[in-house]
Amino acid sequence: MMANAEGNKLWGGRFVGDIDPIMEKFNASIAYDQRMWDADIHGSKAYVRALERAKLVSLEDMNHILQGMDKIHEEWSKGVFQVKPGDEDIHTANERRLKELIGEPAGKLHTGRSRNDQVVTDMRLWLRDAIFTLKANALQLITTMVERAAVEIEVLFPGYTHMQRAQPIRWSHWILSHAVALSRDVEQLQEMRRRVNVLPLGSGAIAGTPFNIDRELLRKELAFDDISINSMDATGQRDFVAEFLFWASLCLTHLSKMAEDLMLYSTKEFSFVTLSDAYSTGSSLMPQKKNADSLELIRSKAGRVFGRCAGFMMTLKGLPSTYNKDLQEDKEAMFDCYDTVHAVLQVTTGVMSTLKINQSVMEAALSPDMLATDLAYYLVRKGMPFREAHGVSGKAVFLAESKNIPLNQLSVDDLLTASPLFDSDVSSVWDYGSSVEQYSAPGGTAKSSVSAQIEHMRAWLKSQSQ
Amino acid sequence: MMANAEGNKLWGGRFVGDIDPIMEKFNASIAYDQRMWDADIHGSKAYVRALERAKLVSLEDMNHILQGMDKIHEEWSKGVFQVKPGDEDIHTANERRLKELIGEPAGKLHTGRSRNDQVVTDMRLWLRDAIFTLKANALQLITTMVERAAVEIEVLFPGYTHMQRAQPIRWSHWILSHAVALSRDVEQLQEMRRRVNVLPLGSGAIAGTPFNIDRELLRKELAFDDISINSMDATGQRDFVAEFLFWASLCLTHLSKMAEDLMLYSTKEFSFVTLSDAYSTGSSLMPQKKNADSLELIRSKAGRVFGRCAGFMMTLKGLPSTYNKDLQEDKEAMFDCYDTVHAVLQVTTGVMSTLKINQSVMEAALSPDMLATDLAYYLVRKGMPFREAHGVSGKAVFLAESKNIPLNQLSVDDLLTASPLFDSDVSSVWDYGSSVEQYSAPGGTAKSSVSAQIEHMRAWLKSQSQ
Amino acid sequence: MMANAEGNKLWGGRFVGDIDPIMEKFNASIAYDQRMWDADIHGSKAYVRALERAKLVSLEDMNHILQGMDKIHEEWSKGVFQVKPGDEDIHTANERRLKELIGEPAGKLHTGRSRNDQVVTDMRLWLRDAIFTLKANALQLITTMVERAAVEIEVLFPGYTHMQRAQPIRWSHWILSHAVALSRDVEQLQEMRRRVNVLPLGSGAIAGTPFNIDRELLRKELAFDDISINSMDATGQRDFVAEFLFWASLCLTHLSKMAEDLMLYSTKEFSFVTLSDAYSTGSSLMPQKKNADSLELIRSKAGRVFGRCAGFMMTLKGLPSTYNKDLQEDKEAMFDCYDTVHAVLQVTTGVMSTLKINQSVMEAALSPDMLATDLAYYLVRKGMPFREAHGVSGKAVFLAESKNIPLNQLSVDDLLTASPLFDSDVSSVWDYGSSVEQYSAPGGTAKSSVSAQIEHMRAWLKSQSQ
Amino acid sequence: MMANAEGNKLWGGRFVGDIDPIMEKFNASIAYDQRMWDADIHGSKAYVRALERAKLVSLEDMNHILQGMDKIHEEWSKGVFQVKPGDEDIHTANERRLKELIGEPAGKLHTGRSRNDQVVTDMRLWLRDAIFTLKANALQLITTMVERAAVEIEVLFPGYTHMQRAQPIRWSHWILSHAVALSRDVEQLQEMRRRVNVLPLGSGAIAGTPFNIDRELLRKELAFDDISINSMDATGQRDFVAEFLFWASLCLTHLSKMAEDLMLYSTKEFSFVTLSDAYSTGSSLMPQKKNADSLELIRSKAGRVFGRCAGFMMTLKGLPSTYNKDLQEDKEAMFDCYDTVHAVLQVTTGVMSTLKINQSVMEAALSPDMLATDLAYYLVRKGMPFREAHGVSGKAVFLAESKNIPLNQLSVDDLLTASPLFDSDVSSVWDYGSSVEQYSAPGGTAKSSVSAQIEHMRAWLKSQSQ
Repeated sequence: MMANAEGNKLWGGRFVGDIDPIMEKFNASIAYDQRMWDADIHGSKAYVRALERAKLVSLEDMNHILQGMDKIHEEWSKGVFQVKPGDEDIHTANERRLKELIGEPAGKLHTGRSRNDQVVTDMRLWLRDAIFTLKANALQLITTMVERAAVEIEVLFPGYTHMQRAQPIRWSHWILSHAVALSRDVEQLQEMRRRVNVLPLGSGAIAGTPFNIDRELLRKELAFDDISINSMDATGQRDFVAEFLFWASLCLTHLSKMAEDLMLYSTKEFSFVTLSDAYSTGSSLMPQKKNADSLELIRSKAGRVFGRCAGFMMTLKGLPSTYNKDLQEDKEAMFDCYDTVHAVLQVTTGVMSTLKINQSVMEAALSPDMLATDLAYYLVRKGMPFREAHGVSGKAVFLAESKNIPLNQLSVDDLLTASPLFDSDVSSVWDYGSSVEQYSAPGGTAKSSVSAQIEHMRAWLKSQSQ
Repeated sequence: MMANAEGNKLWGGRFVGDIDPIMEKFNASIAYDQRMWDADIHGSKAYVRALERAKLVSLEDMNHILQGMDKIHEEWSKGVFQVKPGDEDIHTANERRLKELIGEPAGKLHTGRSRNDQVVTDMRLWLRDAIFTLKANALQLITTMVERAAVEIEVLFPGYTHMQRAQPIRWSHWILSHAVALSRDVEQLQEMRRRVNVLPLGSGAIAGTPFNIDRELLRKELAFDDISINSMDATGQRDFVAEFLFWASLCLTHLSKMAEDLMLYSTKEFSFVTLSDAYSTGSSLMPQKKNADSLELIRSKAGRVFGRCAGFMMTLKGLPSTYNKDLQEDKEAMFDCYDTVHAVLQVTTGVMSTLKINQSVMEAALSPDMLATDLAYYLVRKGMPFREAHGVSGKAVFLAESKNIPLNQLSVDDLLTASPLFDSDVSSVWDYGSSVEQYSAPGGTAKSSVSAQIEHMRAWLKSQSQ
Repeated sequence: MMANAEGNKLWGGRFVGDIDPIMEKFNASIAYDQRMWDADIHGSKAYVRALERAKLVSLEDMNHILQGMDKIHEEWSKGVFQVKPGDEDIHTANERRLKELIGEPAGKLHTGRSRNDQVVTDMRLWLRDAIFTLKANALQLITTMVERAAVEIEVLFPGYTHMQRAQPIRWSHWILSHAVALSRDVEQLQEMRRRVNVLPLGSGAIAGTPFNIDRELLRKELAFDDISINSMDATGQRDFVAEFLFWASLCLTHLSKMAEDLMLYSTKEFSFVTLSDAYSTGSSLMPQKKNADSLELIRSKAGRVFGRCAGFMMTLKGLPSTYNKDLQEDKEAMFDCYDTVHAVLQVTTGVMSTLKINQSVMEAALSPDMLATDLAYYLVRKGMPFREAHGVSGKAVFLAESKNIPLNQLSVDDLLTASPLFDSDVSSVWDYGSSVEQYSAPGGTAKSSVSAQIEHMRAWLKSQSQ
Repeated sequence: MMANAEGNKLWGGRFVGDIDPIMEKFNASIAYDQRMWDADIHGSKAYVRALERAKLVSLEDMNHILQGMDKIHEEWSKGVFQVKPGDEDIHTANERRLKELIGEPAGKLHTGRSRNDQVVTDMRLWLRDAIFTLKANALQLITTMVERAAVEIEVLFPGYTHMQRAQPIRWSHWILSHAVALSRDVEQLQEMRRRVNVLPLGSGAIAGTPFNIDRELLRKELAFDDISINSMDATGQRDFVAEFLFWASLCLTHLSKMAEDLMLYSTKEFSFVTLSDAYSTGSSLMPQKKNADSLELIRSKAGRVFGRCAGFMMTLKGLPSTYNKDLQEDKEAMFDCYDTVHAVLQVTTGVMSTLKINQSVMEAALSPDMLATDLAYYLVRKGMPFREAHGVSGKAVFLAESKNIPLNQLSVDDLLTASPLFDSDVSSVWDYGSSVEQYSAPGGTAKSSVSAQIEHMRAWLKSQSQ
């Protein structure tokens, strides 16, 4: 132990004294975990009731603690709670304040409890509420989209694959393709909620709780669905956080995808849609610019949120079991992802409810070559195997390109050079309206099928809001 | 269009000719997607039945196609199927072979189908089977762990938090903490299965399927639970892959955490456990070394698998909607994660079923200072508020350290300097067996509670294997 | 140690016997690390020379070992080297084969060496070569781009920000913007090479090398620039791998960005460029489709490669110091990133050297509103502060939109309603050619400036190939 | 355009009115980019000088602008600058304030400049300073470590690989292994600085700058090393940010690795080191606990920082070229990584300068089996090929284990059963001090070699601080 006697002198420390202020700041979480003040009070109130039931505090003490907690609640609500130096986290702050308010009995509140089970209980309570809000945000967006799809069902425009014009589709079919993805997000959120809504309180630091604390009572008081099975797992796992961060990432990937489509559609070259001014901004240099900043921000956030997921997963991955301080990274990640998804869902709702479509431009973008599949189907209907029909139609496309005319301007004679099955009834192919109506199987772009999708989504929305 | 006439000459191309062999290789997926040969045949057989029902192929043609497909199945099964140049993917390969076997009617198989809906159908069929296997692997591991916990329930050892000795716990409590995490993985796998098991076939490239293809029939034939709602979403989304990759990441994070614990426990310094030779290796330089390579490999794989997840998410994130070739990254990621989790679960089962524990060392590692919480509880039971009792116990710890004696060697007189509530009955505190028995609430480390956890897990395992 | 006597029976192992075949496969790296056969032989030949110099092998033994190694080299070169069961990695395989070829003296080769320093030496040798190749690939691509920029310098087209038309620029300016990014990649590759090219051999497993092995001699023999400073760091660090994986990620992000631009430019709506057929593919369903698959593959690979980086970083992050088996994840990541970047650079070179531009479409896409900034500059030149001029120009844009006429069709009288500074000389603003010529400062889009960029890049290319 | 007339009513918007407050907040960056106030003022002052030189502002106006900027600088310095609603970013805020202070001429400042080149100039100026600070932090840490290594050079303890005792090494050798890794970080930081320190100002939004702005003058004024080559690249690339984020990740991976070692060494079971109280914390439940929170925080931050890198890379990856609003994600990531690395380096310096080592425990942990390699070397020195000697030593290890005695307690007779080359001089092997002295080649753990490493590092430190 030769080192430290003259240690600092020898190799030069950063500071002299008992406390390293940077370490103190590094260690403290109050700056962000104070967001959980409500959850912390909620949990402590339930806990003191369980303590009373277990005869660890008297009825009188319990009432003092409950009243003190209500007072603290009021202070936070009014924004007058004073965080003091030494309040390293919200749990310390609330208990410190309780002692100021009610004195000695405050010291009984933490009996048999550890910060390890307290903090994770608070997080689960907080996230449960956050999920509730995000679900409502998502449902509002989906509703907006589904109702818009219902109104604009007659609008046709090009469907793209590989960013190339593929087949005529309904604009509403496109809207619904994104709404359906979001509905999966809502369903996963619901499933996740069940895994979030499990009570860890009563797990102590690692070994569980002594003193006949009634965990079933705690569960009921705090409206959890279930009780954690194993105390070491309960205090040391953050699966529910990781799962939430990934959920946020996948959800925003869906919105990024939609934003990417809309950005394309709002270029001068496509001109299918026009963003509301409320969701656009200008340029500091170029007076004519109107940029789709809202879409770009939506698109960018999927990266941010996945970064939080990746960061937390990397931190988690390096740990042995039970509580390690590294887990403190959980909260900022969780809050940031919540805030981001919360904002993005609302901005997207705004964008989707104010966007103008330029129907005539959309329809003018349909071109006869997009019916080449239909030309092949024409032949299939006349008995030609599809592979062969695909080839014949490809020849017709090539022929039209060589002649520098649209595909539908090829004469029957031209077509006959590609296959003897062509006849004058081929003219019926060149109708975008008829084309989309072919796709009447479930999920297709025919009006009946799109209407069915709308009805399906409306029913689903109804079931979700109950 | 000035550029290309003499283009290559001007700025020098990499090759001259119609085909860039690097592009061709870059584009082809047959090297890895041939793993889905069975799924592809399965899907095509169902599809031709739907075509026959829709009168798009005759009964005779259908039978030829079915027989051809069976023959191809046999070839793959026997390992004699020959992949040929030009077979860019498994779908092309199987259809090419079908044509060789049955001629013209083979060309009818693809009617109304697109590679876009075909490939995603194959992937879902494949992953459904993979999930089945992984679930079985996980259940075997959990069973091993739960039964081991039942046998070794009497063994006590130090529970750690922050990698520091915290409180005495049962070794079985530790085992179960990891088993419980894995049981969550199994449950999420089940939920994911429902999202995987949705039929996309009949979505075409983007617009849906024409020709009265009966998607409900396809669903039944292929034992899917549901039908995709929107054709654009169905062909362009890979959420189920992303979800699987993340599932694999979280599952392996659990196993990494357990491996980390075991690595610690198998250091010379801890010496709690000894790995079987079957899961250890030696050193090329140091003759005495026995390394826990299996544990290190388990630990490392969570990184690999999350990397696949991160990579695929990044690729997904950059896309507009519908099918884009970028999605081709889905398969290698999915296969690699499956293979990795499949191997890791089995190796972990091997490790956990052959590991020796060194009970006497484990018990010798329990030390009186680990009962400092119990000392505080002793005072709480005598009426002292916990916060105060925590402080008194802390003083006792300090006193023992100052005297350089174990905490349980402090005399009652020593203790009385810290609090007047101490009495000769304090001697009852210094018993590790009694200590753990305090934690009898659900989830705790008392024997009754650990037994209840074992029963809970056995019942759950039974429910899962039905 | 109660557990294992009847252990397997009690909780059911996966297998019975000494070796778990899954563990064996899991542990072995020969399937992929055999790519380093050349590096391994190279390193061993240098090492035996150092052993001879240190009098640890005789001149005769050294010669036997060198001849044996040459023979093994020949076998690998001809593809006839037989990997045998038990060859867990390339190092074991080569040494096993050496023993078969020359007997006893083979056992002297590993004196004072550990697999820990051997493997990392092999990796550094391998990566040094890989960097050489990638640099050549990148330089070829940059050369192609720079020369194309020189040829097509007269072509103007819209420059975009936020995917909206911003200002007229030269097509060559766009090409060079990507070439410049790639030149940074080459420079970082060079810097990385210096960190890669450091000799770890002679570090043993952890403590260094005994026996007067001359590390300076080894360095010279193997053409390393430097010698590792600390043996623990040398064998346990993989910074050079992590750095390479990130380099690959950033490089592919550059190519993804360029691919994204080109994909946009090759949509029907933009129609600025046409990909060569060699880099496009068709659709299995839609006969008219020509998809820019090459661009999509380029775009997708940045995700794949960053995934490798993220995965390896996560694995690295979880480790204590020195060699841990987890590091075995290094090689597949390194190989996959090399293969991917190697292919992508070549395919991009192919794309860029065969792409056709549609000059008339590009120029037709320039529109008067893109000169709104120039209109503001016109006013600035007449003394108006820019902020005010920006506002006036914005008013003019609005006026033109209200009148539904192009900006350049506003009469001087119209303009005078916005500012009294307008005069008939405003007509000079409406010239795209003059507009771009304003930007003659270094880095701008004027012809002189673009030419200077081309000259700069040519000089840089020349300096790189020396 | 049927949609929007009654749009909001039909599908329900989130808000009514011109401005969506959530969008506004979402769009604004002032909350975090105000950190760059100094850089922004610095850049603007240089820019107005260039404008004056180009005769775009008068000498008088320039002086007004410079004085106004100095006043704004003073306000920020004193913390009295008032951010107002509408100040969406620091650039807007400063220019708005300038106008308040000096009126009309303020409107001339932005002539020929765009926020696109302004923001990236500010970021580069800011990051250049940040790099300077981080370098100083890192050098202080390395100095602390190197000097500590010099003082404690006599202390031996077990070197570990795979977390298993491997060979005796010097404690200072371990310290230096981490210091060397950090010195690479410093060198990369220096290289990165050159890529950061490139002037983008004068690139405008995309096309460059008109009006004869002298970019070389700007470069000199702002002390940049170089001028950006291409304006599109200059405004649209954030490579320097991505590179910094990855640098931070790799640097923290090094510190996480060291923290992981120290956490292991500070377990009760190892007891090699004792953290200063200033860097430890207690438990809310367990009075005896002293947790190495500082080490856990250090370990966790590598995840956080890499998450920022992953998130930003994912955002970058999805973009076409030039400026897109998505790039706004750059700043929070950059600031957070800076703050984190800045704190971690300082806390680590504190930890390393106050840590006590328990020399007697460290030395007592050395065990004879760690000399098994030396036993093999003993035989090698007597002429036995290493492979054979390795096997013989392994037999001796096995023999000692069978006899349940330490390896050094085997008699010569015992040893002779393994090989006839053993003799009584084998007793010389059993000396840890002699063992380490074998490793005297560069990089080894012999005293001379460790001293040389210290001298090397001291010289390097000296060169860095010049």
